[in-house]
Amino acid sequence: MSGRLAIVGLGPGDPRYLTAEAEAALAAAEAVYGYGPYLDRVLPRPGQSRHPSDNREELARAGAALDHASRGGAVAMVSGGDPGVFAMAAAVCEAIEAGPPAWRAVDLAVVPGITAMLALAARVGAPLGHDFCAVSLSDNLKPWALIERRLKAAAEAGFVIALYNPVSKARPSQLASAFEILGRDLPPATPVIFGRAVGRDGERISILELAEAAEEPADMATLVIVGSVATRVVARPGRAPLVYTPRSAAPGLSR
Amino acid sequence: MSGRLAIVGLGPGDPRYLTAEAEAALAAAEAVYGYGPYLDRVLPRPGQSRHPSDNREELARAGAALDHASRGGAVAMVSGGDPGVFAMAAAVCEAIEAGPPAWRAVDLAVVPGITAMLALAARVGAPLGHDFCAVSLSDNLKPWALIERRLKAAAEAGFVIALYNPVSKARPSQLASAFEILGRDLPPATPVIFGRAVGRDGERISILELAEAAEEPADMATLVIVGSVATRVVARPGRAPLVYTPRSAAPGLSR
Repeated sequence: MSGRLAIVGLGPGDPRYLTAEAEAALAAAEAVYGYGPYLDRVLPRPGQSRHPSDNREELARAGAALDHASRGGAVAMVSGGDPGVFAMAAAVCEAIEAGPPAWRAVDLAVVPGITAMLALAARVGAPLGHDFCAVSLSDNLKPWALIERRLKAAAEAGFVIALYNPVSKARPSQLASAFEILGRDLPPATPVIFGRAVGRDGERISILELAEAAEEPADMATLVIVGSVATRVVARPGRAPLVYTPRSAAPGLSR
Repeated sequence: MSGRLAIVGLGPGDPRYLTAEAEAALAAAEAVYGYGPYLDRVLPRPGQSRHPSDNREELARAGAALDHASRGGAVAMVSGGDPGVFAMAAAVCEAIEAGPPAWRAVDLAVVPGITAMLALAARVGAPLGHDFCAVSLSDNLKPWALIERRLKAAAEAGFVIALYNPVSKARPSQLASAFEILGRDLPPATPVIFGRAVGRDGERISILELAEAAEEPADMATLVIVGSVATRVVARPGRAPLVYTPRSAAPGLSR
């Protein structure tokens, strides 16, 4: 008899971002799998087993959870943010496609969550208020030339751009390269937002201009949003500025 | 003394998508503003006033809520999905920038929610598992030529594309035009997902190929996700197929 696997989006970290559906899915699980630091965000429950794993082991983790569920278990896999955005849901689907037939019989549910770009955007106003895109700067699984092409296409077409996985120890200079590419099509004063650990302890948000963004420190817990030519910064006395992209297109793009 | 305005994302509709933060923001409000049907999703609370308005009145609604908050009120504005994605947060920021100085003094909070593309993606697997973009097909506030340019750029660069506001009574044929534009760069078998009323009564999800997508009915409650050349459909005996975009780039895009 086949069981159930729920891939649960935890949102940015703080429990206030958790949906009622995510709470219920965690409460119903006999076993919880996930990357160690994400699993640490879930309170232990009596009778529930915990199966932490390392960051780079997505496919092995997916396989272990599918195997457990295919033997009849009620299994949850936790994911930061939204499971469908540069996270575990695609890895589980890849494992199912390549795996044994029993894995296709598992009752699979993806429980959506607040992905990092929505959390960061909410903190500063509405920078994603018009057409936008999300690009992972990790070249573990795709060539850098393709990332360059996507950044250029997005900037030329006037998309606001959310950059996931902007840097890692193995890729310290890719974010600066991305800013250099974007700077060929975007004005130096284009607003750029850095959000580190958004919605968690140690949150830090900076609002910069593209011309100075390469100097800003970033790490694996950072999300970056690069505005379009239409994105605006509104000063507020005694408050942080608002950053937003108007619902109407900038005149310069209306050709 | 200035008050507070929280723009609260309700997610797709069902209360199970609500975050704990959104619940708390609604509970703390003395007055709730919003488009009528969204306001109907919020349970009335004793002592809380309700201020429904029509769909096309975003700026007037934003102004009324800001005015209320600037006089010291604890005000909530409800938004479907996420307030920052083709919803009320940008309209409120526009109103603040153009409005009286008192509006800049309001304690503004945006409470993120599950936007439609995350909810629909979760229902079918992980179609947004790789780089993606979100485009509104409404040409109320931007020229159709710009929408065409963005669709072409996104398809050429291999983004998965979420189409918000795909049709309206005033624009019955724009979705078919969008598919025609995308079909110049994407294969006829590219997976296309239609989600109507996702997470609400009457939910209907269809998985199609691009070549047949123009025949599928859609309305203002529909969200459409168009896959990239890498997006895959995995058959499952006795279950709906999974649709996902692998984390690695398709070989054809790796140049």
